Amino acid sequence: MQADLLNSAHRTRTAHLLQQHAPLVHCMTNDVVQTFTANVLLALGASPAMVIDAGEAAQFSAIASALLVNVGTLTQPRAQAMRAAVDAANRAGTPWTLDPVAVGALSLRSEFCRELVHLHPAAIRGNASEIMALAGASSGGRGVDSTDTAAAALPAAQWLARESGAVVAVSGEVDYITDGQQTLAVHGGSPLMTRVVGTGCALSAVVAACCALPGERLHNVAAACAMMKHAGAQAAEGRGPGSFIPAFVDALHAQHMEVNA
Amino acid sequence: MQADLLNSAHRTRTAHLLQQHAPLVHCMTNDVVQTFTANVLLALGASPAMVIDAGEAAQFSAIASALLVNVGTLTQPRAQAMRAAVDAANRAGTPWTLDPVAVGALSLRSEFCRELVHLHPAAIRGNASEIMALAGASSGGRGVDSTDTAAAALPAAQWLARESGAVVAVSGEVDYITDGQQTLAVHGGSPLMTRVVGTGCALSAVVAACCALPGERLHNVAAACAMMKHAGAQAAEGRGPGSFIPAFVDALHAQHMEVNA
Amino acid sequence: MQADLLNSAHRTRTAHLLQQHAPLVHCMTNDVVQTFTANVLLALGASPAMVIDAGEAAQFSAIASALLVNVGTLTQPRAQAMRAAVDAANRAGTPWTLDPVAVGALSLRSEFCRELVHLHPAAIRGNASEIMALAGASSGGRGVDSTDTAAAALPAAQWLARESGAVVAVSGEVDYITDGQQTLAVHGGSPLMTRVVGTGCALSAVVAACCALPGERLHNVAAACAMMKHAGAQAAEGRGPGSFIPAFVDALHAQHMEVNA
Repeated sequence: MQADLLNSAHRTRTAHLLQQHAPLVHCMTNDVVQTFTANVLLALGASPAMVIDAGEAAQFSAIASALLVNVGTLTQPRAQAMRAAVDAANRAGTPWTLDPVAVGALSLRSEFCRELVHLHPAAIRGNASEIMALAGASSGGRGVDSTDTAAAALPAAQWLARESGAVVAVSGEVDYITDGQQTLAVHGGSPLMTRVVGTGCALSAVVAACCALPGERLHNVAAACAMMKHAGAQAAEGRGPGSFIPAFVDALHAQHMEVNA
Repeated sequence: MQADLLNSAHRTRTAHLLQQHAPLVHCMTNDVVQTFTANVLLALGASPAMVIDAGEAAQFSAIASALLVNVGTLTQPRAQAMRAAVDAANRAGTPWTLDPVAVGALSLRSEFCRELVHLHPAAIRGNASEIMALAGASSGGRGVDSTDTAAAALPAAQWLARESGAVVAVSGEVDYITDGQQTLAVHGGSPLMTRVVGTGCALSAVVAACCALPGERLHNVAAACAMMKHAGAQAAEGRGPGSFIPAFVDALHAQHMEVNA
Repeated sequence: MQADLLNSAHRTRTAHLLQQHAPLVHCMTNDVVQTFTANVLLALGASPAMVIDAGEAAQFSAIASALLVNVGTLTQPRAQAMRAAVDAANRAGTPWTLDPVAVGALSLRSEFCRELVHLHPAAIRGNASEIMALAGASSGGRGVDSTDTAAAALPAAQWLARESGAVVAVSGEVDYITDGQQTLAVHGGSPLMTRVVGTGCALSAVVAACCALPGERLHNVAAACAMMKHAGAQAAEGRGPGSFIPAFVDALHAQHMEVNA
C-alpha cells in the first residue's frame, strides 16, 4: 500500500479557502446528525442549508455550491428527492458527495447507493465496512459501526474511485483518500470521535464543502479529513464525549479564526 | 425610520410572565433545530411539544397555548399538517407564529408562506431577506442567510404587519418589531449567534410563546427578541460557537431564575 | 405500596454488562431527541442505529440486539414502519421497548400504543400521566408533561405489566419499575432533568439496551433508571440546563469507564 502523508500546509490553506468562498452546502442528510452537521459547517465558515422536498431540493442544488447525500435515515420519498437533487446538481455542475451510511445489509439504501455511484459523485466518504460493501467487496458492517480497518478497505476504495470517478475517503484510525491513482493518508484524531454521533457524517459535509473549492480535489478532500482530525485531537484532551462536542466545534472554529489572524 | 427602544423592564416582566404562565408551545418546525428549540423554551419555563401528524396536530394546536409554524424543511405532507394545525388554532383562538425560513427562491415554501400570511398569524419572525421576500419586495436571500440589513427590510415589515394583522419581527444586528404603526428596536446580541444553527428559529419559538402571554403583543414579541439578544451577548463572552450553545441556554435559564430570586 | 430499593451494585453490574455486550440498539424514536439518544447510548458503550424505512426497519430489527419504539413524532408512515419492525423483532426474538410519549389526548398515537401493548413489549417506559393513560386509568397529561406523580401511577403500571407481560418503568421524582409482582424504586436525579428535552426518551433507549442483557429484566430495567439518575445528579451540580447536557453525557461515560478501571 502506497499512501503519502498530507502536507499540513494543505489543511491551513483549505481552511482559508473555506472562509474565503463560504460555500453554500445543500445537506440532504439523516435525522440524527443535522444540527451537528450544520454547526460544524458554520464553525468552518461554510453555510449549511437543509432542503428536502423533491421540487425544492432540485431548485436548491442548482444554486448551491455543493450537495451532500447521506442515506442514514433513507425512506422512499427521500430517495426520490435525492435523485431529483443529484440530477439537478449534475446539470448545474454542482459537485455532490455521497455518504453511504450502513450500506450493505439493508436493501433500500444498498440499491440506492449502487445507483448513485454511477451518477458522477465528486466524492464518496465512508468507513471501511461501508466502502467495502459499496465496492461489492463485503456485505457491510454491523449497522453504522465499521468492523474493518481503513487500510483493509483501501483496495476497494481505489477500485471505487476508478469506477465512479469520485475521490473516495475511507475514514478510520487513519483516513485514506484516493482518486484511484494517488492515495493520501491523514493521521490524528481521537477514539472519542467514535463515541459521539455524527463525526463521520459531519466529515462528509465538510468533504462536500471542500469539493466546491478551487484546487486539486484529492488534496481538498484530504484537507477536510485533516481539519476534523486536528479538531478532534484538540477537543478530546481530558474530556468525556459530552464536553467533547462543544470543544470540537470550538476547535474547528479556531482553525477558521486562525485564518483571520 | 422611527423606532423606539424597548424598555428593558419589558424583558424582565416578560420573563416573569413566561414562568408564571408556562405556555405549552406546539412547535411544527424544521428537522435541524428541534432539540435546540425545545431546550430554549424549557430554559425559559415554557413547555415545548412537537406534534406533526395532520390529525394530531389539529387536536393539539386547539389545546396548546401557542403554535409555531416554521417551513425550514417543508414537504407536501408537512404543509398539509401545518394547514390543519393553523385552521384548528384559529378556530380555538390559539395564537400562531410564522417563521418563513428561506422564503423567496424555493417554490413550495414560497407559495405556502404567501397562503399562510392571509390566515391571521399573531406574529411573523424572519431575517431581512425573508421578510422582504414575503412582502414581495425582493426575491429572497441566499438560502437561509440574509443578504440585507434589518433596517432595509423595515418598510416591508411594516407593510406586511398591516397586510397580515401580525406583529412582524425582523431580526438582524438590530431587531425591529412592528405592528405596522409602532416600531420597536432591540439592540445587543453577538455575531456568534449567526455561527450557530437555530438561534433565529428558536427566537421564533420564543416569539410564539410570548404571543400566549397577557399584555400588548408588540411589547411581548420585542421582549422575546430582547431575552435572546441578552443571553446571546452573555454567552458569547470569550467563547467559540460550540461552547456558546450550552452557555446560551444557561443564560436564558438565568433570566428565568432571576424571576424567582 | 410496596417497593424495594434497587441495590446500587446492580447499577455498576449493568454498566459492566452494557460495555461487555455493546448492544446494537435499533432506535425508532422522535425527531427531537435523536442526537441526544444516540450520544447517551454511545456514552454507555451501546451502539445506536436509527433505521426508519419500513422494509429496512424490519431487516434491521431482526439483526439488532434491541428495538426502541417511541411515538413522540408519530405519523402514519412511521406507524407502519414501527409495526413492521416490531413484527420482525418478535419473530427474531429481539426484545423491544415502548415509549408512549404523550399518549392519551392524541388519537393516532393513543390507538397505536394500545395496539402495541398487546404485541409483547419487553419493557414500557413512560411518565406517570402516560402510564395511567396507557392503562386506561386517565386521559393523559398536558402534552409531554406529567401531571401526576409516579407513585400515583403505580397501580396502573402494575396492571399494565401484568396485562402486557412487559416490565413497566414509571419515571418521575422517584422511578418505579415493576413486573406486576415485584416493584423496585430508584431515587436520585435532579429537577434539571425535566428542563432538558429528551432525558425521558433517552432513558427509554437505555432501558431498551438493558433488555438485551443477560440477567433478570426487572433489575436490568431498574439499573437503566439508576444509571440515568446517578448521572443526572452529578451533572446538575451548580449548572444550568445548557451545560447540564454535556456534563450528563460525560457522567454516563464515567460510569462506563469506571468499569474499565
